[in-house]
Amino acid sequence: MSERIIYLNGVYINEGEAKLPVLDRGLLFADAVYEGFGILDGQIVDFIYHMHRLERSLGELSIPVPFDTDEIFCVLMGLIEKNKARSGFLYLHVTRGVGDRAFHYHDKYVPNVFAFTQGEKFSADEMPPAIDLLTYPDLRWARRDIKSTNLLAQVMAKQAANQSGAFEALMVDANGLVTEAGSSSFFFIKDNVLYVRPVSQEILHGITRQTMLRVAKDRGIALIERTFSLEEVLAADEALITASSIYVLPVGKIDDNVINGGKAGAFTLALRKGYLAKARSEFYTPKTS
Amino acid sequence: MSERIIYLNGVYINEGEAKLPVLDRGLLFADAVYEGFGILDGQIVDFIYHMHRLERSLGELSIPVPFDTDEIFCVLMGLIEKNKARSGFLYLHVTRGVGDRAFHYHDKYVPNVFAFTQGEKFSADEMPPAIDLLTYPDLRWARRDIKSTNLLAQVMAKQAANQSGAFEALMVDANGLVTEAGSSSFFFIKDNVLYVRPVSQEILHGITRQTMLRVAKDRGIALIERTFSLEEVLAADEALITASSIYVLPVGKIDDNVINGGKAGAFTLALRKGYLAKARSEFYTPKTS
Repeated sequence: MSERIIYLNGVYINEGEAKLPVLDRGLLFADAVYEGFGILDGQIVDFIYHMHRLERSLGELSIPVPFDTDEIFCVLMGLIEKNKARSGFLYLHVTRGVGDRAFHYHDKYVPNVFAFTQGEKFSADEMPPAIDLLTYPDLRWARRDIKSTNLLAQVMAKQAANQSGAFEALMVDANGLVTEAGSSSFFFIKDNVLYVRPVSQEILHGITRQTMLRVAKDRGIALIERTFSLEEVLAADEALITASSIYVLPVGKIDDNVINGGKAGAFTLALRKGYLAKARSEFYTPKTS
Repeated sequence: MSERIIYLNGVYINEGEAKLPVLDRGLLFADAVYEGFGILDGQIVDFIYHMHRLERSLGELSIPVPFDTDEIFCVLMGLIEKNKARSGFLYLHVTRGVGDRAFHYHDKYVPNVFAFTQGEKFSADEMPPAIDLLTYPDLRWARRDIKSTNLLAQVMAKQAANQSGAFEALMVDANGLVTEAGSSSFFFIKDNVLYVRPVSQEILHGITRQTMLRVAKDRGIALIERTFSLEEVLAADEALITASSIYVLPVGKIDDNVINGGKAGAFTLALRKGYLAKARSEFYTPKTS
């Protein structure tokens, strides 16, 4: 197998050569933001929505947006082509830049940008497995709406899940309220109503979440956006998670509590199918090509 | 001026060549810990205490300690010598290692280690300035006792301080309690009693803090360790901060509130003098040399 090609600051290079200075603020302070995109049929899923979120994350941290939307689209499509990635995951990372170690910053930093592809976890068009969740305390900081690389709380949560044999963590705050999953948005269905926590600084504004909610709306599914407890979740008819690397996945178990008999439910499968169709109908086309 | 020499994974190299792969988990997840040491008289201040904390941080994240204490001491002293650093700041960083992007980890990662020196902010032996603090919400995660590179909340706090002309941020939690300063420990003095917040998961276990508290104890200064509000702090006779890059500094103002007439107080200056003497009396000597 030939070496993966990585995009770094304007060039495509072999993975082994893609390096950043140790004085990059991404390493010293996690002063960096990122996006993860699905790759489907060799195309980038939900591209423009991810770009809007990336621009918002950069703006919250006063990091200049280091590329034009169509330019980075072209760069990422080139990366997908060079890695012959028909399906899978695409990662894009922007750090503030390199400098002597000082917490505060100035406007002279030059952002470092890199991107790479990875293989898919589950095939988009096959029947997805019902995955297990492990509940874990939500230890994150107060600005979870910024998609930064300050991810150690999620690493700890997902490591605990992995060690217990679960696929993902379900994070619960100090008040017993569910926030979201370790690296995915969380939903449940009860009496034909879809429940999800409203966006705020307390959760990430999931892009797959947002597109799937448009699908639910199109299909006339009743939606309630509010906070909810773990107890409520455990009484759900179905539960599901969404993320760009997995699209929509049914939840079969939370800790030792079986959901929907441990199987993918009809609502969830319909939302997954609808999501994939919607995503495929909205692939981005640069305006300037 | 010749280029700074950086230590990276066993070798001393020019700053421009010191790089890590973009797939290092330090960049992708802030899955990394660090220590900052003072350099005084060409020696490392509080070396063994910093090493104990580093080993604890690594242990909390199940990252193996990648060096023997005397070995890394020798490496760091070599770095100080190569950079002709008589005084200033020494930084040591350990990441979990490099791999495909997945939140969970396994035991096959090989830690990456780097270290560098920087110049001093204030001369240890000159009269220190009374610095200003800006209050800022404490946005950090729940495991502030782990000295990880998840530092974006501190970057935001210290950037706000810097923009307002203050030297440092004073972080206040959602309950109106002071936690600590942006990258230093915070103390105040009232009626000849020294007040400091007790160590817990809510603050970093400051090494300079710990050594200075030994100095205070030696001198018979009354100490109360408890949480306190910003209101209490504003009524203080003196206030001070400690960190390895600044040792002990008097606080002259918090937002618009002048402390001790905006000048360094007698208690603070005595503690600073005592701290520096203590630190100089405890320079580390390897057992195996």
